[in-house]
Amino acid sequence: MKLIARPIDLEVGGKNIVIMNKEDVESLGLHALDRVRLRYNEKELTAIVDETAKFTIKGEIIANDDVTNFFKLKGGEHLEVFPEKELESIVFIKQKLAGVRLDYSKFKKIVEDVVNKKLSTIELSAFVTALYTRGISIDEAASLSKAMVETGRKIKFPGKIICDKHSIGGIPGDKTSLVLVPIVAVAGLTIPKSSSKAITSPCGTAERMEVLASVNLSLEEIVEVVEKTNACLVWGGALDLAPADDIFIQIEYPLGIDPLLLPSIMSKKKAIGANYVIIDIPIGREAKIKTVEDAHELADDFIELGRKLGIHVACGITLGEQPLGHAIGPALEAREALLTLQGKGPKDLVEKATVLCDILFNETGQKNHGVALEILKSGKAEKKMREIIEAQGGNPEIKPDDIVIGSKFADIKSEIDGKVLWIKNSAIVSIARTAGAPKDRGAGIYLKAKVGDSVRKGDTLFTIYSDNYMRLNDAIYLAEELKPMVIGKHFEEKMLLEKVFSEVPARKTFMLER
Amino acid sequence: MKLIARPIDLEVGGKNIVIMNKEDVESLGLHALDRVRLRYNEKELTAIVDETAKFTIKGEIIANDDVTNFFKLKGGEHLEVFPEKELESIVFIKQKLAGVRLDYSKFKKIVEDVVNKKLSTIELSAFVTALYTRGISIDEAASLSKAMVETGRKIKFPGKIICDKHSIGGIPGDKTSLVLVPIVAVAGLTIPKSSSKAITSPCGTAERMEVLASVNLSLEEIVEVVEKTNACLVWGGALDLAPADDIFIQIEYPLGIDPLLLPSIMSKKKAIGANYVIIDIPIGREAKIKTVEDAHELADDFIELGRKLGIHVACGITLGEQPLGHAIGPALEAREALLTLQGKGPKDLVEKATVLCDILFNETGQKNHGVALEILKSGKAEKKMREIIEAQGGNPEIKPDDIVIGSKFADIKSEIDGKVLWIKNSAIVSIARTAGAPKDRGAGIYLKAKVGDSVRKGDTLFTIYSDNYMRLNDAIYLAEELKPMVIGKHFEEKMLLEKVFSEVPARKTFMLER
Repeated sequence: MKLIARPIDLEVGGKNIVIMNKEDVESLGLHALDRVRLRYNEKELTAIVDETAKFTIKGEIIANDDVTNFFKLKGGEHLEVFPEKELESIVFIKQKLAGVRLDYSKFKKIVEDVVNKKLSTIELSAFVTALYTRGISIDEAASLSKAMVETGRKIKFPGKIICDKHSIGGIPGDKTSLVLVPIVAVAGLTIPKSSSKAITSPCGTAERMEVLASVNLSLEEIVEVVEKTNACLVWGGALDLAPADDIFIQIEYPLGIDPLLLPSIMSKKKAIGANYVIIDIPIGREAKIKTVEDAHELADDFIELGRKLGIHVACGITLGEQPLGHAIGPALEAREALLTLQGKGPKDLVEKATVLCDILFNETGQKNHGVALEILKSGKAEKKMREIIEAQGGNPEIKPDDIVIGSKFADIKSEIDGKVLWIKNSAIVSIARTAGAPKDRGAGIYLKAKVGDSVRKGDTLFTIYSDNYMRLNDAIYLAEELKPMVIGKHFEEKMLLEKVFSEVPARKTFMLER
Repeated sequence: MKLIARPIDLEVGGKNIVIMNKEDVESLGLHALDRVRLRYNEKELTAIVDETAKFTIKGEIIANDDVTNFFKLKGGEHLEVFPEKELESIVFIKQKLAGVRLDYSKFKKIVEDVVNKKLSTIELSAFVTALYTRGISIDEAASLSKAMVETGRKIKFPGKIICDKHSIGGIPGDKTSLVLVPIVAVAGLTIPKSSSKAITSPCGTAERMEVLASVNLSLEEIVEVVEKTNACLVWGGALDLAPADDIFIQIEYPLGIDPLLLPSIMSKKKAIGANYVIIDIPIGREAKIKTVEDAHELADDFIELGRKLGIHVACGITLGEQPLGHAIGPALEAREALLTLQGKGPKDLVEKATVLCDILFNETGQKNHGVALEILKSGKAEKKMREIIEAQGGNPEIKPDDIVIGSKFADIKSEIDGKVLWIKNSAIVSIARTAGAPKDRGAGIYLKAKVGDSVRKGDTLFTIYSDNYMRLNDAIYLAEELKPMVIGKHFEEKMLLEKVFSEVPARKTFMLER
């Protein structure tokens, strides 16, 4: 069937979509969400069919951004349209749904179809939920990781020991990477650190670093920066390293599940050529991991997966009961990181960054415990950080006070005398985001007291910063409602955390396989 | 935030979608696929947000068909747009993903959000796959069925015994309903039969009946027809009976899974007010159910679910190794059904229809075995069918020869002497669909031989009918490739059905709950 192309500027994110008239779809023997093969100018592409009775007429085919760009359509071209056979990847997704283990070749086929934008949202969603409900074995995680690496770009730094660091996250104010990366680089190791942006948190490492320098570097620019400084701190989102991951994340986010945690992290590390990786697993009541036992189990999986991918992995299980340092929000955190590199940082941040460095040094064979703290104290890490900032187009002379913090602020005060019994991380996150973080770089929270500190009635517990009064007021209102810091006389006095009701696991009824 | 509306004719099927500029989405603190609450003219609606950098400008909001129709938008209206809180139903979907049993109130919330078009494809897809991988208990199936009934329209026929029949399907040529419904009505029972259209088969009951009369009746018209004739044979797709089901089916189809089988069928029966239901479970190598044991298990589930919904259910496990009767395709099947009502039908069809009727008569307390066959032989069922055809706007005088069959046809002949050892149902389906069924009413297949029949070299095995030569040629080509009838000397000579390789079930790695 030949149809006339009409391009529209519709971005759907990782899918080739065409919209055809219902009658044309029926004439091809297809239904909505089936696939067609398009041919034009000796190029071929597989796309998913949406059908409409009105939006387009018979004989016309609407192409979304991805299809338009592939064929360089201007409108009016005659595309040849054929029904596409069922994709093999769909068969493998159904096997995973049914609880079957998949091997490398099957994951490869699925991931290829993902990055070639052939899979519909329904199929992507089924794959992600199947991984979640059926689980993945370490062998599967390795196969999936390899498939994700092979379907994207890769960086190589020949002859160097490449290190990397990752935190599984969830701790507000965790600016460890900004302190750790320059220390590692000073020690003579190479650390091309790429980070993500915040999705549900008030600040990601990319946003922290962006206060000091550009983080939107191309792969070629990264290589240049790393050759110059032994390190970088960049945004990893547009580098096409394990690009399938970016598509999977779009599915995981609305569901709030993360079955690809292991392959997701490790495929990015493999694509950047890492030999040694330190993984930070913070634990705490409100952290992603709640217990030391769970953290050990996860650490074992990371180490085992690393072994299968040829990467030495070490994990640090760290305390995550409260925010790290005092600052939450891009500008506030960049300032605190810079102060820390100048020897004026909060104890918990210094401790965490240097301890993780020492584990990494030990792993790479430099067994000198305490080296990291020495490097930090010597001022060499600060100097290295300024080199990195300069190489990434920032101002290497920047002082902590040069960093612009939100001009509107409000102090939240204690209503009683007592001690900080605990800090609700999730409340801190909500308040900082309501104040405008991470979009408004100056917005955030600065904690004046942390767990165990004594406070008097009327003392400031924390300050909320924002760029505008409306957001500041919303954040104050939320702070009063959520009360992120619990103040009391003794740690023993508030024993009930929350009430739990039992939920019964399901027994299955007969299930029909179609 | 106030945005200016631009309606576009984009149908997405069961979802309220708005497309907003990326900057406006960020200003609301939202991401793509989050939800907004829209307010205009004192009406409110929840919609899913798609974001774009180009397709719409800042300050504008594009509304799809569902949103446009709800607010009666013409373009240029100022809609108030608020970020929507997380839906409670998403929490319940995540519980199901995690393997928790859901109760009625949770299913009700999910199904309400489904029919109110609040859930994105990702969330719908996660719910359907969670039901598939985690399974549903009978209590859950009952809760889900009730929720699906309560969120749609219902029919009542006060003071009558309402019967219904359903086949779980998969057998080409299964026109049993066209014979069973008039027999049941003659016996004094009421049977308002609604059916679906073919999705992957060459013909559904709605298409068969449509050859003889209109099947697109409103609920009011159905009540009229049933009051007149005690029966009807209509299309159930647009009646708004358990409408959530139609949305779930859109997700199930591309994945080829059917976890809602039980609630799907039983909610439609409950909504139509059925007291007694006979369910046909055909078994066979290529049927949906392969073994008698599986069929029993499924039958028990249906009966138990019926009990919880206040419906008496009986099941018939029937032979489904080959097509039923000789005819496959709308016109061919309608003709065979009419001939059967005139006493000139194939044995298997007569046997199946009357046996299922007798089970139903027994269930309702009329314990006379053989009554159904008597009614059929007496000609009363044919007379009743003509009443139904007339009430539904068809020609009550129609003769089998009046039904127009595809004008182009070809005989497929045996290449050897022997017996029909088996018939591949899936191949018959593919060939009939390639010939044009169900869209071309006259297209299909007429079997000249069935399993066990002796054939000589050169005898016609079956005839393919079509409305055009191109499709006929494609179907002939496919028939030669697939060889749907296997001819041999003895049943014992072809022992290998297919090769099977073992697949190992998955062990899970650590799974992080976000």
